[in-house]
Amino acid sequence: MKMIKATIVGYGNIGRAAVEAVQAAEDFQLVGLVRRGASRQGLSADLAGVPVAADVKELPEKPQVAILCTPTRAVPQYAKEYLAQGINTVDSYDIHTGIWDLVEELTPVAQAGGAAAVVSAGWDPGSDSVVRALLQGLAPKGITYTNFGPGMSMGHTVAVKAIPGVENALSMTIPTGTGVHRRMVYVQLKEGADFAAVKAAVLADPYFVHDETHVAQVEDVKALIDTGHGVNLVRKGVSGTTHNQNFEFNMSINNPALTAQVLVCAARAACKRAPGAYTMIDLPVIDLLPGDRGSLIRALV
Amino acid sequence: MKMIKATIVGYGNIGRAAVEAVQAAEDFQLVGLVRRGASRQGLSADLAGVPVAADVKELPEKPQVAILCTPTRAVPQYAKEYLAQGINTVDSYDIHTGIWDLVEELTPVAQAGGAAAVVSAGWDPGSDSVVRALLQGLAPKGITYTNFGPGMSMGHTVAVKAIPGVENALSMTIPTGTGVHRRMVYVQLKEGADFAAVKAAVLADPYFVHDETHVAQVEDVKALIDTGHGVNLVRKGVSGTTHNQNFEFNMSINNPALTAQVLVCAARAACKRAPGAYTMIDLPVIDLLPGDRGSLIRALV
Repeated sequence: MKMIKATIVGYGNIGRAAVEAVQAAEDFQLVGLVRRGASRQGLSADLAGVPVAADVKELPEKPQVAILCTPTRAVPQYAKEYLAQGINTVDSYDIHTGIWDLVEELTPVAQAGGAAAVVSAGWDPGSDSVVRALLQGLAPKGITYTNFGPGMSMGHTVAVKAIPGVENALSMTIPTGTGVHRRMVYVQLKEGADFAAVKAAVLADPYFVHDETHVAQVEDVKALIDTGHGVNLVRKGVSGTTHNQNFEFNMSINNPALTAQVLVCAARAACKRAPGAYTMIDLPVIDLLPGDRGSLIRALV
Repeated sequence: MKMIKATIVGYGNIGRAAVEAVQAAEDFQLVGLVRRGASRQGLSADLAGVPVAADVKELPEKPQVAILCTPTRAVPQYAKEYLAQGINTVDSYDIHTGIWDLVEELTPVAQAGGAAAVVSAGWDPGSDSVVRALLQGLAPKGITYTNFGPGMSMGHTVAVKAIPGVENALSMTIPTGTGVHRRMVYVQLKEGADFAAVKAAVLADPYFVHDETHVAQVEDVKALIDTGHGVNLVRKGVSGTTHNQNFEFNMSINNPALTAQVLVCAARAACKRAPGAYTMIDLPVIDLLPGDRGSLIRALV
């Protein structure tokens, strides 16, 4: 089997999970990790022998694909840098309103560099997008609701942490159906902070003001953190002229592990595409998988 | 909007539903129905003004795509006839073990004719295949179970009808989980037939001998028939090195309506493909949908 030479850029939660997913994939070879300062500090044991560099150009082997595990706002800049060098990229850029703009921004750079980018290849946006597009096809008229959780919301958690008097915080997203979510906020206070004031600030924050929000004080936020998450995606609609067609997709998953696995699948697909920028719904699903076409069709269709 | 000119071949349950789905699709124009003897007998009112011919060559306008709603065993022959004329085809060929062979059989004919075939584009095989392939990507190690029903099984029903003494029959597939199914068989007997003998024959039939099967005698099978069906498709597996990732896809649907809707989606995709033969997992999901790429990505990713 021809191995896909990949590098991972960034070594946070997603980067760590991406190392596991790349090393678990039979058709991938991890040719290096790109990390600020080329630091080997805190690397997991499975990275022994894997080169670490501050710049991809310093890796001993040029990768075919870079799995970008940087903060989401840094994705456009990194993607352009790699695409211009002819290295395919995948990312899990998660600002829904910016995805099409990102496709348009990366397309000319990818075409000029002779490389392919797959953007927003996490689980939402990402694999959920594939399900949403499929369900739109199966019932062209109707309503789709994507219900998230239970799971930690990074954006909401960061908003609470920014409130004066908050030492640490966790905001959990709880689905209550039809795309409506409850926010369960857990705060650990700084010495002398007033819980009532912190609670009022949370409830008045733009992140929370439109949602049912409950705020609780806890001694130790770290003891509450788990990386599980979930989705309940439902569509009820019309196929042809027949109403009441009901569809539902559920998952209960470890968030970084699934994000990283989707990135690896998208990296595989990126290596098969013509130069350009793509989202998950632009890809044939078979391209996400290793193996030959005949065997996959026999096994899965 | 440029309209896709389509014909429907066959006018059974699926053909009737395909007429509805084509007429409901904003980007399709039904240029004719191909039916044995070019008969207009029993046509629904929405077909007034639509040409009916015994052969596609006799239709006033040549279609870009033929939606084959023939019995499944007749699909290969019809597909080759149309593809050779440069007309794209879609079908809901449902013999799982024959799908890859059908792809290989149609590929050279399609390429020679300059047309594309999308085979096995119903819900299983078809849209379920897309979900199975996606879940295989999300958790590369693990087990997928496809649980069917509750719904009528055509193959099992036909097997019961062939038993001496049976006037009419219905075999319902009931999912009991992990891909195991119960068979609920309802038989209406001919005058003087012995229920105990019929029941014994059903239980000994190769279609039923390996499954939990219950046989009941009823006065009127027709009064029990509904065309609803369902799927519960589950996968539990490993993303990267993280176990216990759980996924589930459920639907409760009208069977011919969904089959026809998938055929229309696949017809749309067929008109965008290079000549050749494809399954649903070979297609970008976005190609199943009408509309421009930017709007679809904004709305669905």
